[in-house]
Amino acid sequence: MRNAFHDQLDSIFDDLAAICADVEVAVTRATHALFDADADLAEQVISGDAAIDLARERVEDNALYLLSLQAPVAGDLRIVVAALRMVSELERMGDLSVHVAKIARLRVPHRAVPAGAEQTVGRMAEVAEAMVRRAGQIIRSRDVDAAAALRADDEEMDLLRRTSFTELLGDDWAHGVEAAVDIALLGRYYERIADHAVSVANRVVFVVTGQYPTSD
Amino acid sequence: MRNAFHDQLDSIFDDLAAICADVEVAVTRATHALFDADADLAEQVISGDAAIDLARERVEDNALYLLSLQAPVAGDLRIVVAALRMVSELERMGDLSVHVAKIARLRVPHRAVPAGAEQTVGRMAEVAEAMVRRAGQIIRSRDVDAAAALRADDEEMDLLRRTSFTELLGDDWAHGVEAAVDIALLGRYYERIADHAVSVANRVVFVVTGQYPTSD
Repeated sequence: MRNAFHDQLDSIFDDLAAICADVEVAVTRATHALFDADADLAEQVISGDAAIDLARERVEDNALYLLSLQAPVAGDLRIVVAALRMVSELERMGDLSVHVAKIARLRVPHRAVPAGAEQTVGRMAEVAEAMVRRAGQIIRSRDVDAAAALRADDEEMDLLRRTSFTELLGDDWAHGVEAAVDIALLGRYYERIADHAVSVANRVVFVVTGQYPTSD
Repeated sequence: MRNAFHDQLDSIFDDLAAICADVEVAVTRATHALFDADADLAEQVISGDAAIDLARERVEDNALYLLSLQAPVAGDLRIVVAALRMVSELERMGDLSVHVAKIARLRVPHRAVPAGAEQTVGRMAEVAEAMVRRAGQIIRSRDVDAAAALRADDEEMDLLRRTSFTELLGDDWAHGVEAAVDIALLGRYYERIADHAVSVANRVVFVVTGQYPTSD
């Protein structure tokens, strides 16, 4: 049965989807800044993060207003708390995009990622971007099945992270310590973006079904 | 005026302080495992994390119960939400200790941190441990002034992180790529533990004063 609570909750989910779209832009731009050694684009990601932080505050205020106005009981209460967690995670994903952009900026006019590591890091970036996009679709569609697919993407990310370590710790690594450290940290940032995307999707599953998905 | 809400809130804060004490043990043990190349101790940190996760769930359940039972209005509502965020952050600090322990375990029987980097990484570990301990004291005492001191500790951590990068990216670095990557990631983990400790302390300030501290 629909009521004022659910209408307001829909509005909060619309805002979450909008923030997720902004995060997707941030991840994509940070990756372009990284691979094109584009300082201006990196700056856009860094300065653009304030808008994501502000949007987060607005969603939090709306969620708290909903809690205080409607005083929802157990199940609905947990849904609002899930929304609060989702917005925290989306904000963190924005912060992690800033970290990627800062590494890009630090190495301009050079590229932080040397040719020998381009494939693995590039794929990590692609997977992370796709996962953020999919998380946004899941927020909009409340498609529980799509969340399972997202967990499969996350397994590819874990595999890529291991491949990346093998590359940069192997005897063939010819790009020195600085590039290795940059790539290890970039890998960590993309991996965390992916983790948060899965977590956001899992919270949508919780909102729809009342249960968090078991790992599969 | 004291009431049932505040009594239950005190109980939640007692639980938060207990979790913070567990996190402190985890950070200390992970650091010992790292510097003593002690696989057994690393395993204790890794397997011990499940208890922190469980304690987190208990606090969340209590906080949600408090919300549903008391339906607190604006100010009190934000306090409960702050408690929910604190417990999430404490759990993340536990996860980060596990990451440190896993690097320690990966390099046994060797030490991940070579002698040339011992001082800076060791100091990062000390600062992180001290910050977790102080965060626990702040949760227990609700001492708003101590939270400001914690933010000063965090500045030392930022400085140590920069020093560490200078060391491992300098011409004098003689310990290879693997140690550099380990130290860059360890630095990230200790830095994040420190960030979360500051955030937990800032939330206590909010609970006591109704305002988040401005950066000083």
